[in-house]
Amino acid sequence: MRFLDLGSVCVLFFLLSCEPACGETSGVNPCCYLPCQNQGVCVRYAEDRYECDCTLTGFYGGNCTIPEFWTRVHHFLRPSPGVVHFILTHFSWIWDIVNSTSLRNTLMRLVLTVRSNLIPSPPTYNSKYNYLSWESYYNVSYYTRLLPPVPEDCPTPLGVRGEAGLPDPEQLVERLLKRRTFRPDPQGANIMFAFFAQHFTHQFFKSFNGMGLGFTRALGHGVDAGHIYGDNLERQLQLRLHKDGKLKYQLIDGEIYPPTIVDAPVKMTYPPTTPLEQQLSFGHEHFGLLPGLGMYATLWLREHNRVCDILKAVHPHWDDEQLFQTSRLIIIGETIRIVIEEYVQQLSGYHMKLKFDPTMLHRSDFQYSSRIALEFDHLYHWHPLMPDALIINGDTLTYQQFLFNTSVITHYGIENLVWAFSKQPAGQIGGGHNLHASMAHVAVKTIEASRLLRVQPFNEYRKRFNLKPYESFREFSDNEDIVHQLEELYHGDVNALEFYPGLLLEKTRPGAIFGESMVEMGAPFSLKGLLGNPICSPLYWKPSTFGGEVGFDIVNSATLKKLVCLNTKTCPYVAFRVPTQAELEEDNRKRKNEL
Amino acid sequence: MRFLDLGSVCVLFFLLSCEPACGETSGVNPCCYLPCQNQGVCVRYAEDRYECDCTLTGFYGGNCTIPEFWTRVHHFLRPSPGVVHFILTHFSWIWDIVNSTSLRNTLMRLVLTVRSNLIPSPPTYNSKYNYLSWESYYNVSYYTRLLPPVPEDCPTPLGVRGEAGLPDPEQLVERLLKRRTFRPDPQGANIMFAFFAQHFTHQFFKSFNGMGLGFTRALGHGVDAGHIYGDNLERQLQLRLHKDGKLKYQLIDGEIYPPTIVDAPVKMTYPPTTPLEQQLSFGHEHFGLLPGLGMYATLWLREHNRVCDILKAVHPHWDDEQLFQTSRLIIIGETIRIVIEEYVQQLSGYHMKLKFDPTMLHRSDFQYSSRIALEFDHLYHWHPLMPDALIINGDTLTYQQFLFNTSVITHYGIENLVWAFSKQPAGQIGGGHNLHASMAHVAVKTIEASRLLRVQPFNEYRKRFNLKPYESFREFSDNEDIVHQLEELYHGDVNALEFYPGLLLEKTRPGAIFGESMVEMGAPFSLKGLLGNPICSPLYWKPSTFGGEVGFDIVNSATLKKLVCLNTKTCPYVAFRVPTQAELEEDNRKRKNEL
Repeated sequence: MRFLDLGSVCVLFFLLSCEPACGETSGVNPCCYLPCQNQGVCVRYAEDRYECDCTLTGFYGGNCTIPEFWTRVHHFLRPSPGVVHFILTHFSWIWDIVNSTSLRNTLMRLVLTVRSNLIPSPPTYNSKYNYLSWESYYNVSYYTRLLPPVPEDCPTPLGVRGEAGLPDPEQLVERLLKRRTFRPDPQGANIMFAFFAQHFTHQFFKSFNGMGLGFTRALGHGVDAGHIYGDNLERQLQLRLHKDGKLKYQLIDGEIYPPTIVDAPVKMTYPPTTPLEQQLSFGHEHFGLLPGLGMYATLWLREHNRVCDILKAVHPHWDDEQLFQTSRLIIIGETIRIVIEEYVQQLSGYHMKLKFDPTMLHRSDFQYSSRIALEFDHLYHWHPLMPDALIINGDTLTYQQFLFNTSVITHYGIENLVWAFSKQPAGQIGGGHNLHASMAHVAVKTIEASRLLRVQPFNEYRKRFNLKPYESFREFSDNEDIVHQLEELYHGDVNALEFYPGLLLEKTRPGAIFGESMVEMGAPFSLKGLLGNPICSPLYWKPSTFGGEVGFDIVNSATLKKLVCLNTKTCPYVAFRVPTQAELEEDNRKRKNEL
Repeated sequence: MRFLDLGSVCVLFFLLSCEPACGETSGVNPCCYLPCQNQGVCVRYAEDRYECDCTLTGFYGGNCTIPEFWTRVHHFLRPSPGVVHFILTHFSWIWDIVNSTSLRNTLMRLVLTVRSNLIPSPPTYNSKYNYLSWESYYNVSYYTRLLPPVPEDCPTPLGVRGEAGLPDPEQLVERLLKRRTFRPDPQGANIMFAFFAQHFTHQFFKSFNGMGLGFTRALGHGVDAGHIYGDNLERQLQLRLHKDGKLKYQLIDGEIYPPTIVDAPVKMTYPPTTPLEQQLSFGHEHFGLLPGLGMYATLWLREHNRVCDILKAVHPHWDDEQLFQTSRLIIIGETIRIVIEEYVQQLSGYHMKLKFDPTMLHRSDFQYSSRIALEFDHLYHWHPLMPDALIINGDTLTYQQFLFNTSVITHYGIENLVWAFSKQPAGQIGGGHNLHASMAHVAVKTIEASRLLRVQPFNEYRKRFNLKPYESFREFSDNEDIVHQLEELYHGDVNALEFYPGLLLEKTRPGAIFGESMVEMGAPFSLKGLLGNPICSPLYWKPSTFGGEVGFDIVNSATLKKLVCLNTKTCPYVAFRVPTQAELEEDNRKRKNEL
């Protein structure tokens, strides 16, 4: 740590071409300039004196800008994210070979290690504390923060950037994010993918705005299947049948569906006009909103009860509690496998075949714990995935017809929904102009929250994830309209560009669902959350944890297709991407034969 | 995993000379025989079929009893705990050399790694769940359990051991634990040590019997200084001054003391007859009980406020919150250093100089998390430390005069208490017959709880910590009376000996405060708890976390002596062991000069 006076800050910011700030520094907290680079920690001393703590950053100097020898070597050898991505998404014939050798394991381990090393564990800051404190470590009601919030006493929500004024969020969304015509994901993700994303992530993204911005209700901070079993014990007990480990259910035409709130009285959000028999009970209180979520909830409910039957057959003496708890661990294991091997695989577009094998990390210094970050929550606002309307069995359902309408689930049945959602393409997330009007308010609220919570600028996050900060909007986007509008909205200062708009408006990679930043920032959060689950730790990852070989096999062979086909009577086309023409014809033939 | 039928169990138990059990097995859960060795996990299948999951144990075979090749090599090379202890407690001239070389670091790292590897992290079982479950991982209201509780449906609380009946706890305590004449600790621990032990450990041992056996109120599960700041936010806010980061206090004769419950209205347990001005508020609701606890509470209160002043001087712009939070982290750091370098040093009797240096573990696979185990709580019932009466400034105070009498603190003042407690020897913990009558009921309750909570037998814990199980009471104890009584009470079956009596009655090591098991079981729990604190993790362990070099220096140079002498006007003799004759004379001289 070395002391720096404000002169040096000015020099620094002059170099970064930020002349205006330096003229009017008197009284401004020097940490507002975000002077410490490379994860150095800014500590304010006197009025205009601060220190950067460069411990373990691999850099030294007043602002932690001078690389140590090994840092230089490391940086020289490290390939750029762009190059790595290009290799992973091209040369499929090489990957066909790699995927069948042990090199696959080596590379997968490397991916996991490099990605998850970017996430601090134990967690550090939260929305109240931009310095380390016991409270922010201990109080799991907060989302954590990867970068500390900008100090409260700074001139702008971004520190000193955006002094000329930040854009009106409504304007920004209206002019840059709102959909003009639907643009499908060029990687082929479908609505089945979109609803999976929403269903899966809402177990750990449960903003508790009633408590304040930056809080969460999902205290498990990861894949705890709280969206299936409830995020607290009381709710779980209401949802359970208390027999053979199972969850409550109802039979409609011989098929298993979630119970109504009469049978499983838990708090759900339905409009008061919803008939009682359509008010289904789910683990997550908001999952009545979209029949796509209800479809997944139904599938997991069936899967849980199916697993209970299997466990009971091999462990006839186990009580309800042990059957329930062990099934829950199996469901968590299945989820993680499907997410890594199918969902992330689809998202990445990689030719490398991803693999869920926790033993890869067993002798490394990986921390088995996870705390969900606010930035991860903001980043995951992927509403452009949603189409203009849902098309099911030839019917076109508007959102008005779809929302809170659980009768869609029972009317069409799970098979038809799976088939319909698998066929229909999802929207491209990145590149702008692809957010359905009915969801525009979500983006507005995200931007507003990000200012109140003093989330650092997009370019600061670029640096945090080892990406080069953008020097201009022209470098940031290849769309003339977006460049022009951003120039105007942010008064020409790319360093004032905010986190969420940055992620959604960055130029997409060729043929990809979004840009470089979404991948490079999202993947570390995601993989750390998945592999940091306790079931992945050495003492948990063994057959007995899952009731023996039978249960462990279920975890080790889980697929989306099995989730659907072991829990429905017919087995429709199901995947996270739209079918090819051949697959479509094959499926049509199959469906005709079944009828 | 391989299936075993009950025939094999019988053979196994025949080998372990447990003939009676095998005759009457029909209907008994085979896991009641605790058949799986070497940390294998028992899973029940049919009526009389079970499997041991030997994954990662280093053993295989039906009961995980056959060592793999590297396990053999490892066991062959591993020195016995007795030999290691002998070396560490002898050859002081060699240690004088080692302590000044880098070999000290290497050995210290080895101690930390070997010890803490014995503690599962993430935690595994709890008093409700003897199998892995999300609930036992997630619900921090439970103490964890190192060994799973004995299944509920077993013939006895120990599984099948103790079928002839377990001893009446009152009888056991009366005949074996109750003090006859005070026996001082041969290692020289004093009452200053005893009160430190009690004060320090009650931040993480807070059994919440109102919720049920096996629960805790201390949800921080480690060194969070909750005994100073309260175990919840509401209490903390009542104890804080909300100015300059400080805690509330009162001045008596110009000295700082904790506030009364009038000024800091928090729940405390005092007899209703206690005058209001003697009802002091502490972080821990029970710390009014003993003036020795009140003395430490006063010292830490003064230290906290002293640190706040120092931080404020270097960070004039910091608000109350940041001064408070950063001081708290410093207090936690000071505590851990004093515990390892002085308290554990005293307890161990090692000539090797112990060192608190978290960087030693920074590149290893150490998990930065801690969950307090029920067994650790039971193990730490060290009430034999307490003397027959307290001797302060020539006055002899009985417990009746001492208990709930906070006026002792202000009447004598901190200096006199420190001096008195440092001079007076504490009792030997191990070896039996040394528990003051007024505390006998605590031991009785511990034994009763251990049965209700189905804690496994002492010998099972011996095995869990790589110690040879005792084959007879004669091997277990070198005291004829104890051997004789135990033979009678446990019907001659050393495998029925329970956890807590085992720890307290085992033969002590020569000249030591207790026996081998207390050290070999206590040290892993202790070191894992201390080093697993988030402040020890790479991202926390740096100057800025503690407010810069000034704060980091306080943490790095903390001693018991500084804690006392920087917070009192005179500096009495203070240590965790009774003074030598020379030290006593020196101190008497000094005190006379001061008067």
